[in-house]
Amino acid sequence: MAQPTVVVLGLGLIGGSLAAALRANGFAASCIGWGHREASLRRGVELGVIDRYTLDLDEAVDAADILVIATPTLIAEEMLERILPRLLERAQPPVITDVASVKGSLQRAAERVWGAMPPRLVLGHPIAGSERSGVDAANAALFAKHRVILTPVAGNEPTAVELVSAMWASTGAEVVEMTVAEHDRVLAATSHLPHVLAYALVDALARSDASDDVFRFAAGGFRDFTRIASSDPVMWRDIAIANRPALLQSIDLFSAHLEELRAAIEAGEGDTLLQTFSRAKAARDEFAALLAARGQTAT
Amino acid sequence: MAQPTVVVLGLGLIGGSLAAALRANGFAASCIGWGHREASLRRGVELGVIDRYTLDLDEAVDAADILVIATPTLIAEEMLERILPRLLERAQPPVITDVASVKGSLQRAAERVWGAMPPRLVLGHPIAGSERSGVDAANAALFAKHRVILTPVAGNEPTAVELVSAMWASTGAEVVEMTVAEHDRVLAATSHLPHVLAYALVDALARSDASDDVFRFAAGGFRDFTRIASSDPVMWRDIAIANRPALLQSIDLFSAHLEELRAAIEAGEGDTLLQTFSRAKAARDEFAALLAARGQTAT
Repeated sequence: MAQPTVVVLGLGLIGGSLAAALRANGFAASCIGWGHREASLRRGVELGVIDRYTLDLDEAVDAADILVIATPTLIAEEMLERILPRLLERAQPPVITDVASVKGSLQRAAERVWGAMPPRLVLGHPIAGSERSGVDAANAALFAKHRVILTPVAGNEPTAVELVSAMWASTGAEVVEMTVAEHDRVLAATSHLPHVLAYALVDALARSDASDDVFRFAAGGFRDFTRIASSDPVMWRDIAIANRPALLQSIDLFSAHLEELRAAIEAGEGDTLLQTFSRAKAARDEFAALLAARGQTAT
Repeated sequence: MAQPTVVVLGLGLIGGSLAAALRANGFAASCIGWGHREASLRRGVELGVIDRYTLDLDEAVDAADILVIATPTLIAEEMLERILPRLLERAQPPVITDVASVKGSLQRAAERVWGAMPPRLVLGHPIAGSERSGVDAANAALFAKHRVILTPVAGNEPTAVELVSAMWASTGAEVVEMTVAEHDRVLAATSHLPHVLAYALVDALARSDASDDVFRFAAGGFRDFTRIASSDPVMWRDIAIANRPALLQSIDLFSAHLEELRAAIEAGEGDTLLQTFSRAKAARDEFAALLAARGQTAT
């Protein structure tokens, strides 16, 4: 396929940034946006993020060589259920991919509609974001030097996987593959669990008797630790529900570990604490060095 | 007292920065450093952080109008136990203060030696720090716009409290007072608990089967959330032990809250999750605005 027509369903930060990158680097012949809010789509054209837009989902789907579902996680499930039946009718369906933070819930949604994972549906997840959201925050360089995880399955057409991989590689991202289960487990541990912990801590303090004092005297470490508690609550509710099995496992692993530390503190076992803190510091320093080597700031 | 002679026991980041500030702003007639490592003390003189140093603790204590114990938390307890008997012998003992992260453990140490809090011992805690440490990182501007918490007790001489307060105010810090118990509770909630959680999370992941993958795919949110797990393990072991009662309470409050969130996730209670996450986001955004208003960066 020379230059595919890329249709982006949901023109927010991620969908907009992807479209902008694919237009800028010449990967796409044309980028078409679809969504519910015409103002955002019109803004996308003004900003040069997309070539054109439509409010008609069937028209959008029919125009696509590559269809990118870039709506929030739970809505992505609904989108998949809505569009898959129509795509079945096409002789040559488009390659379909997505950007959601959870992959298992989408796989299950596809299997509900189609009976199995469609051969041209290749689930994906760019590990990139911003504190800003919406098409106005779209940035063609958002994925450069960042990872994109694809979770191909045995039934996928190899050419479909290659096309999605080439699309992301063109944005400067490093594309890696893992299984759906592995993705959901890794993301639960490194992203979904930390968000739940930060939300739990801030809410616990906010609801305590002395919440004013608590926040008045908190400083830089607390600011960094709780930054992710300023994330979009709707998005994180959806992720917590979509990735429930892996997230519950992560919470339980963490709670068992915290319970061990608590026991060591209560017993005044300084050696245990020092060993645990030292192991954690070594692992965290190594992680920061890794991020720095990838060109992402990491102090 | 016109210009006091300030003696700093332990010339690290905090002690060095305080001495440097008090020399620069003219509060102190002279700043004298005491410690075990002559190289650090000599470096302090070279850098202009202190006027002179001594390796003789008795000489240091005898020279002081204000004595600042700036050693790590657990060592501060030992220092207090070592110097209080000698100070008892002086007709006019110096005003004594400290910079440790926990106040209750020092109060108990003083009471062990003296039977009660000495009238001229005013415990304090500057809420400031840096990722760097040691006298080379000393910075006369470290405390500007930061809070210093003093925890005076009923038996304190008012002039002693005033002098310590004036000393910190001269560095540009905002001095506030609270009780020892309140200090330890607030710091447990906003600093000591987050450190324990970050250490527990990173160590749990590092010890899991798939730790390589986990850290390979972690991103910016994880980096911020775990930054405090790169803190000095010895210092945090000491703090965890020194502030044990308040820290255990904080851990238990947090664990109960996490258990509630876990139950909501397991039951798929989206409304409960959304309410919790939204309350937390509102509180955290308010906190970030507070920090920003104080002139500290807070995104």
